[in-house]
Amino acid sequence: MNLPSKVLEQAVNELSQFPGIGKKTALRMVIHLMKQNESSVGALAKAILNLKTNLQFCSICHNVAETETCDICKSINRNKNVICVVKDFQDCISIESTGQYSGTYHVLNGLISPLDGIGPEDINISSLLRRVDKNQTDEVILALSATMEGDTTSFYISKKLKDLSIKITQISRGIAIGGELEFADEITLGRSLLGRILIT
Amino acid sequence: MNLPSKVLEQAVNELSQFPGIGKKTALRMVIHLMKQNESSVGALAKAILNLKTNLQFCSICHNVAETETCDICKSINRNKNVICVVKDFQDCISIESTGQYSGTYHVLNGLISPLDGIGPEDINISSLLRRVDKNQTDEVILALSATMEGDTTSFYISKKLKDLSIKITQISRGIAIGGELEFADEITLGRSLLGRILIT
Repeated sequence: MNLPSKVLEQAVNELSQFPGIGKKTALRMVIHLMKQNESSVGALAKAILNLKTNLQFCSICHNVAETETCDICKSINRNKNVICVVKDFQDCISIESTGQYSGTYHVLNGLISPLDGIGPEDINISSLLRRVDKNQTDEVILALSATMEGDTTSFYISKKLKDLSIKITQISRGIAIGGELEFADEITLGRSLLGRILIT
Repeated sequence: MNLPSKVLEQAVNELSQFPGIGKKTALRMVIHLMKQNESSVGALAKAILNLKTNLQFCSICHNVAETETCDICKSINRNKNVICVVKDFQDCISIESTGQYSGTYHVLNGLISPLDGIGPEDINISSLLRRVDKNQTDEVILALSATMEGDTTSFYISKKLKDLSIKITQISRGIAIGGELEFADEITLGRSLLGRILIT
């Protein structure tokens, strides 16, 4: 693309560094910005800069936070004795949006993946082990993906916590709510048969 | 979406103002930014701000420029006696990328569209009429879309310039290069039949 100005080119290059955004989309974004007034472009730039200057990770659960500890860890309404282990803070957002959970989180910031060279020491497992307290913690919920990496990580953590004789649970797996059996893949369907629960 | 931080929320809101970018994509962009180092996030913010502070429109052709006149209008290698009329600066970029044109441009910044309440006075037509000089200008090329708005605008401009007895041309319309006849719509095919040219 032959852009008529260096300023334009720089903006397009910067914006096209986002995942899934190519030069054409970046140019469309730049054109959108050029039509905005100065203050709203300034607000965007500030919001972007704030991400680096005003965000940190919670010292307890590694969730994103604006202060040393995140809102969830600080809240008196959350049950500190239940810890839900998730892969990243997006998963916290997903679980929070269900409105079904009132405990705390522990963000691993990744999953054990030997193929990618990610071992237990590369993710926030040691801080989880330090945090789990035999007398205080009631339950550790493993809410990791039903993938090889998720299962490996769940297995590793549950093995490490075994000796503490704390309740360790895993989120259930099966067919999706509203999902037709006909469209469920056979592994999921097989697992949901094995994992059937008594209802009467 | 329940975001764990105001800073995050602000950034997501700002980024989701781009056309075609929803909250989920904006969150993915924010996560990408959070993984970048401070200097590259700063570079992005600066490139965005530069769009408003360092960009203007060429006083001659209304193309985007970093100085009062754009690079094309300033260049001694461009034929100032040929003016190609386009809808917006993206069309300049498209024509420049063909490498087939060495004249100058005139960016209308829109097309006449009575339905949208856009009249000839709302786009850069008067500056085009002032710019076209009976003695200097050899040709005005109308490179507007083959839509009702494009045709209306072309018609209006050609009528206004008629008295100057300057060569006024329109880019050709017909089937796309490499296009199969079978897939061309009948209006385009009909037009390309009517507009056939002698090759021997």
